[in-house]
Amino acid sequence: MARKITVRNLDIEQGRPEVTLTEEDAKELGVHVQDRVRIKADGREAVGIVNIARSGLAPGTMWLSPEITRRIGLSDGQTATVIPAEKPCSIGLIKKKMDGEHLSKEDFRAVVKDVLENNLSETEIAAFISALYINEMNMDETVALTQVLAETGETLDFPGRTVYDKHSLGGVPGNKVSLLIVPIVAAAGLTIPKTSSRAITSASGTADTMEVLAPVTFDAEEIKAIVNKTMGILCWGGGVNLAPADDIFIRVEHPLALDPHNLALCSVMAKKIATDTDFLVMDLPMGSGTKIKDLDSAERFAMDFIELGKRIGIKVECVVTYGDKPVGRAVGPALEAKEALRALEGEGPSSLIEKSAGLAGVLLEAGGVAVKGEGKKKALDILRTGKALRKMREIIEAQGGNPDITSKDIRPGRHRSKVRAEREGYVVAVHNRAVVEIARAAGAPQDKGAGFLLLKGKGQRVSEGDVLFEIYAESKYKLEQATKLARQRPPVKIEGMIIEKIPSYGIIR
Amino acid sequence: MARKITVRNLDIEQGRPEVTLTEEDAKELGVHVQDRVRIKADGREAVGIVNIARSGLAPGTMWLSPEITRRIGLSDGQTATVIPAEKPCSIGLIKKKMDGEHLSKEDFRAVVKDVLENNLSETEIAAFISALYINEMNMDETVALTQVLAETGETLDFPGRTVYDKHSLGGVPGNKVSLLIVPIVAAAGLTIPKTSSRAITSASGTADTMEVLAPVTFDAEEIKAIVNKTMGILCWGGGVNLAPADDIFIRVEHPLALDPHNLALCSVMAKKIATDTDFLVMDLPMGSGTKIKDLDSAERFAMDFIELGKRIGIKVECVVTYGDKPVGRAVGPALEAKEALRALEGEGPSSLIEKSAGLAGVLLEAGGVAVKGEGKKKALDILRTGKALRKMREIIEAQGGNPDITSKDIRPGRHRSKVRAEREGYVVAVHNRAVVEIARAAGAPQDKGAGFLLLKGKGQRVSEGDVLFEIYAESKYKLEQATKLARQRPPVKIEGMIIEKIPSYGIIR
Repeated sequence: MARKITVRNLDIEQGRPEVTLTEEDAKELGVHVQDRVRIKADGREAVGIVNIARSGLAPGTMWLSPEITRRIGLSDGQTATVIPAEKPCSIGLIKKKMDGEHLSKEDFRAVVKDVLENNLSETEIAAFISALYINEMNMDETVALTQVLAETGETLDFPGRTVYDKHSLGGVPGNKVSLLIVPIVAAAGLTIPKTSSRAITSASGTADTMEVLAPVTFDAEEIKAIVNKTMGILCWGGGVNLAPADDIFIRVEHPLALDPHNLALCSVMAKKIATDTDFLVMDLPMGSGTKIKDLDSAERFAMDFIELGKRIGIKVECVVTYGDKPVGRAVGPALEAKEALRALEGEGPSSLIEKSAGLAGVLLEAGGVAVKGEGKKKALDILRTGKALRKMREIIEAQGGNPDITSKDIRPGRHRSKVRAEREGYVVAVHNRAVVEIARAAGAPQDKGAGFLLLKGKGQRVSEGDVLFEIYAESKYKLEQATKLARQRPPVKIEGMIIEKIPSYGIIR
Repeated sequence: MARKITVRNLDIEQGRPEVTLTEEDAKELGVHVQDRVRIKADGREAVGIVNIARSGLAPGTMWLSPEITRRIGLSDGQTATVIPAEKPCSIGLIKKKMDGEHLSKEDFRAVVKDVLENNLSETEIAAFISALYINEMNMDETVALTQVLAETGETLDFPGRTVYDKHSLGGVPGNKVSLLIVPIVAAAGLTIPKTSSRAITSASGTADTMEVLAPVTFDAEEIKAIVNKTMGILCWGGGVNLAPADDIFIRVEHPLALDPHNLALCSVMAKKIATDTDFLVMDLPMGSGTKIKDLDSAERFAMDFIELGKRIGIKVECVVTYGDKPVGRAVGPALEAKEALRALEGEGPSSLIEKSAGLAGVLLEAGGVAVKGEGKKKALDILRTGKALRKMREIIEAQGGNPDITSKDIRPGRHRSKVRAEREGYVVAVHNRAVVEIARAAGAPQDKGAGFLLLKGKGQRVSEGDVLFEIYAESKYKLEQATKLARQRPPVKIEGMIIEKIPSYGIIR
């Protein structure tokens, strides 16, 4: 059963493709709320989820959400054919995985195709991810899904170059190390085209932070041109359509707080295939709020990344890093960009410099520009002699930013509050999750100037009345909200002298 | 962060509670598309999923879908407070089940509460059902979930009465046996308050069929009054709010084609607790399109229903029935009501009468109104002597229908097509799924007169040109669509004389 229906655009972002039909048309088509229909016009088609309007819409017309009109380019007043959609065959493959069987590359290809074509609902994708979580994937499946994810998106290629990359498994606020690593590694003559994400749940993704200094959205040709000029780039991965099905998986698994181990491997490595990476250093932050709770788990990730890399032709080295507190002291786009630039200028917090140089050193050794065991020292040299800062300025200029910018030019939000210690003692913990929530309440990452600045770090002695941290915001209202949150859920924990008697760190928290 | 926002009603059924905010308000609240917010007004509250309108909506106003306004009774122009919703704690319990742990009754209570309060999205519910499917529930969990499902809805009670009930696991078209069983059992003096569902994927649920003869929507008090008068009722379960979370589970698992074994047990038995059942006969239809593929599977269901019943205080007896073809010859509300009434009048297809009497007989024996082994004979007696017909007329009258109705008064849809045999031979199969799809294409169950009438049953000899089946519809267009479908996907399979050589039934299909 098919019907010709006239389009009325509805400019509401619903996060999924929705078609609003009148009761009459839905009845004629034999479809109900939440069913799926195919919308065809001029040889293009899209799948939509049915809503039913009981008023406001004339029979023979329908509202299409922007997710659909963008896809098939229909505009108000045009007509499209609507037919009930059959159940996609990949439902059977999801069931197969649920039943404990293994999926082949062809199976994954069918599922990913249906995901990309909107043939699977979020409910169905959630079932797929649940099956991957509970029944896990073996290494053959992991390799297959990684390759399928990579092949279904755009790819970058850098012929004739050995491509180096760095990736962090995430979960640590203030982790702006890529802003140091890329210029260090590029200054040493290695190619490092770093694509990064924007924040989903964090206060600033590397792309959000870099955007304070220069534009970050480029297409594949522009990326190649910049890399050919400067050896490095710090761009937003979303500007090129790398492994797009992975983004959909992430969107679905995020509210579930589900993160199947091997799907995390696929997600990282598919993007590395798509960006033509030859050598990768993985930063595995261990600690509260990260994916890695202990050394066993770190080792499992490391072995799996290395093995998967081997199977798909990428050499991987893994570094387990301390992830129980923010990297550096600044959290939020402008504050982080300022801190990273200050570190390139020669003055930064040691945790940021140590971590960046350590990871960069692995790449320098792999690229043969540092002697084995001397990579970190070489990285620190590049940083201290100002070579990294010069390279960063080249990169900023190539990306269309102002190359003469200094850390002093970057101003955080004009509204600021200071939170002081209510007692004397030692800082025994800085809670990642609370820091992020305060920065987000203050407006990060959308408000670039919003963020959190730690003044007293872990282990430091504080007196009553000392400023522990500052909150910055672009609006007074958000500053108040964030400050209120900081009082309800203190991000910095202070203990008295008794601290020394506590037998292990785990108990303090 | 909270904001006061003015309500604009949006009369679109979206199948889930949606809140459309302006970009400005969403930004201020720090929420994104697909996030959840809490909407509070006058001490009542509801959770909604965020959509974002880029035009058509003034800042400070929001559209609420009917799912929300129904819940908290807000109308156009009123103001409500909107705050971002925290993640419900039951997410952790879903994760626990995914990780292979067992859930306690308290755990299930928390999950079911969040399901009922819309705190869990369909994605999250899908993950829960996937976990139940893959990791299964043990009997303790099954008992706990059954009890929780029952206690979270309305309940019926019939003090001083022993309550008998019949339930079919479903999947067989034309299964109108309850319309015979209820009057037979009630005529024998036993209490049988039968609540039934409407069709979800079938061509007619028992409630849809009964509605041709009398109203079926009653509240708890009305049901009790009718049962006190007539001993039996055939009403719609949706009229009373029995185990409402179960309906949500069914809505989510349906598109996934997932049906966790033990969740099916909970689903059936929770409603039996809620209707105060003491003795239950379970009809387990085995065959293509049913939940039961073979005798092993039938035995597993039977043992589990009996064991679960024991644990919750309901005596269960199970009967495995032949489910590979429709019961009787009529499929669709009016056609089925007509066929059932005709059987009560003394003239019906033997498959319908045999099955109904067999199931009713189990209840008659359990109730002590028939000698062991003589239940079916007693049921046939009640049917043949017209006692069942008289009882059915009493029930129809008590439910507000016309007690003088006869099968001849029931007219199917006025548009009819006849499909004829294109060759001679034997009917070797009648495909359940195809029959249902044809009846639905013709308009069933919404159009009461639409349906499918089989004229040549399995095993019958046909000559070229014999009418195999008729299709009825209320609209000419739907009749054409259904007839077209019947030609594309023939529901009746005819083979030549070679049929006798085929060694087993399994191979013919």
